Amino acid sequence: MTIPCPLNVIGVVRSARSATEHTPVQSSLNRAEEATIEIAEPYVDGLAGLEDFDYAWVLSWLDRSDERGLGPPALRQVPFLMRRQNRAIGLFAMRGPRRVNPIGLSLVRVLGVEGATIRFGGVDLVDGTPVVDVKPYVTRFDLPPATPRCGWFDAVEMEDGVTPSDLGPAAR
Amino acid sequence: MTIPCPLNVIGVVRSARSATEHTPVQSSLNRAEEATIEIAEPYVDGLAGLEDFDYAWVLSWLDRSDERGLGPPALRQVPFLMRRQNRAIGLFAMRGPRRVNPIGLSLVRVLGVEGATIRFGGVDLVDGTPVVDVKPYVTRFDLPPATPRCGWFDAVEMEDGVTPSDLGPAAR
Repeated sequence: MTIPCPLNVIGVVRSARSATEHTPVQSSLNRAEEATIEIAEPYVDGLAGLEDFDYAWVLSWLDRSDERGLGPPALRQVPFLMRRQNRAIGLFAMRGPRRVNPIGLSLVRVLGVEGATIRFGGVDLVDGTPVVDVKPYVTRFDLPPATPRCGWFDAVEMEDGVTPSDLGPAAR
Repeated sequence: MTIPCPLNVIGVVRSARSATEHTPVQSSLNRAEEATIEIAEPYVDGLAGLEDFDYAWVLSWLDRSDERGLGPPALRQVPFLMRRQNRAIGLFAMRGPRRVNPIGLSLVRVLGVEGATIRFGGVDLVDGTPVVDVKPYVTRFDLPPATPRCGWFDAVEMEDGVTPSDLGPAAR
């Protein structure tokens, strides 16, 4: 079953990154790097109040995630962070970009909102990535009440700034 | 600019709620209530590993959010939690369901994964809501490094279980 959209592109990421393989795998592993979102003119008024939040969720459309033209995503994949172990994980238990619906979820630090531009810290998106929503981070909504188990991530080392290409060649 | 999708429905929420006005405004305010997601058959294999996570993000398509037939969402709206104050906020600084792209983001507790069924705690979605993605909650990715400012939410009281109808009539 499918939902007849289209999705509206509310803005576009402008970052110094151009290829997923050479882009940090998560914004939290690349907090110091800055980038912007240029909000499309019809939606700029929707930013009112965002500057009062320290963090926001950026929902993006990861249309650049299939650079190798692999086609539809497998339901079990080797995550970037499991390339060394070559271990496959269910798509809904990983955060990789090749998804049934390639919607990215990035927690970014809001550094400023000026006109149509959101300046943010924490870059895991390549330049030109379409943005489909921005939501404020709300501790009361987004923080589990106790430290949660995080499955296979609990046993994986993550260095700041790590990119897929740092983790070895992609499994086919 | 629009993205020609369609989105694929990966599953459907089965909950005891039938109308947004009478559904708690966020999953975190209704942690004790349980519901399920029935994953569509082609995608069930993607659940492998999800049971090892305590929390997950449910990305849903909030097609029930315009029950009153209001049409395209305003860029400034009175959030449910601001009905008493009648204060409008930019759409990208609030979490309400009437969005440019009505993608919901709910943090739920994973209680079990059995076959095609995810049993979860924390209900803010009405029965029949289409699910477009499930992502595991990963503390390393999803937790800001320090307690963040949360804008207007920091000055708002929220009772457990509060629904829009508890907060007064909707502003037109």
